[in-house]
Amino acid sequence: MSVSPAVSSPLFISAPALLSDWQGHRRLTRRVIEAFPEDKLLTYSIGGMRPFGALALEFIGMAEPMLHGIVSSDWSRYEAPSAPSKAEILRLWDETTAAIDRLWPQIPAERFQETMTAFGQWPGKVHDLLLYVIDNEIHHRGQGYVYLRSLGIEPPPFYER
Amino acid sequence: MSVSPAVSSPLFISAPALLSDWQGHRRLTRRVIEAFPEDKLLTYSIGGMRPFGALALEFIGMAEPMLHGIVSSDWSRYEAPSAPSKAEILRLWDETTAAIDRLWPQIPAERFQETMTAFGQWPGKVHDLLLYVIDNEIHHRGQGYVYLRSLGIEPPPFYER
Repeated sequence: MSVSPAVSSPLFISAPALLSDWQGHRRLTRRVIEAFPEDKLLTYSIGGMRPFGALALEFIGMAEPMLHGIVSSDWSRYEAPSAPSKAEILRLWDETTAAIDRLWPQIPAERFQETMTAFGQWPGKVHDLLLYVIDNEIHHRGQGYVYLRSLGIEPPPFYER
Repeated sequence: MSVSPAVSSPLFISAPALLSDWQGHRRLTRRVIEAFPEDKLLTYSIGGMRPFGALALEFIGMAEPMLHGIVSSDWSRYEAPSAPSKAEILRLWDETTAAIDRLWPQIPAERFQETMTAFGQWPGKVHDLLLYVIDNEIHHRGQGYVYLRSLGIEPPPFYER
């Protein structure tokens, strides 16, 4: 972990505002999970891509372990969760929501501009590591929208958070 | 336009770093446009959704007019562009890239925390208006990945910017 020079550049967004943005996205992703019939959530796919349930478990597997690593520099916690049902995925989702709200305020103020190597493999500015987790969720959720539309199911509006 | 109270919260990301993040996403989106055969770019669709060329034109239609409005408070410039070919979409894309680089540094430092009503219709903090434009691109680009996979075309890696 190395400290970058003091930042004098204009603030784009503060840490609390970005947390609020992320949790807004996560509420939308939860509605997308809910919109899938259980069997389609666990098995439906287009073009050989993963079912949306597997993608949701990827989001869960990244979020809390990333924050835990950023707070503590302990990167040992990463493991891909598995879940046999929609109810279990939603339960893990809600646990993650609470863990994010608990861990985020524990990130030291200067940490967001520092460089860390996430999970011993991915070096980057902490703000970029966090944006990667959020953007990965938005990216794959867009994939979920296509799955739902191709099943004839209206997805929740993108602009509602 | 109203000014919010002074921000004492920790910096998550600075304005120059966020611009860099956005242009990285835009480079990836450009590669996704390029990955489509021309006829598929303009016509291919799943589940009644728009072809990826129409989505790319939506991104182009939002980016420069949003920045112009944020810089000048003139919101009259919004218009959905049309383009008859992949080459023309890529030309408009590159014009937008240059326009973003030109306009972004003209945003006054305090503006990102202010509230504006984009295009006379969408009120929000300026950082949220900008994140909406970026997130909308990530969201629909994820849709483009499904189109490509279903056509048997390998999309560019998500993590390469």
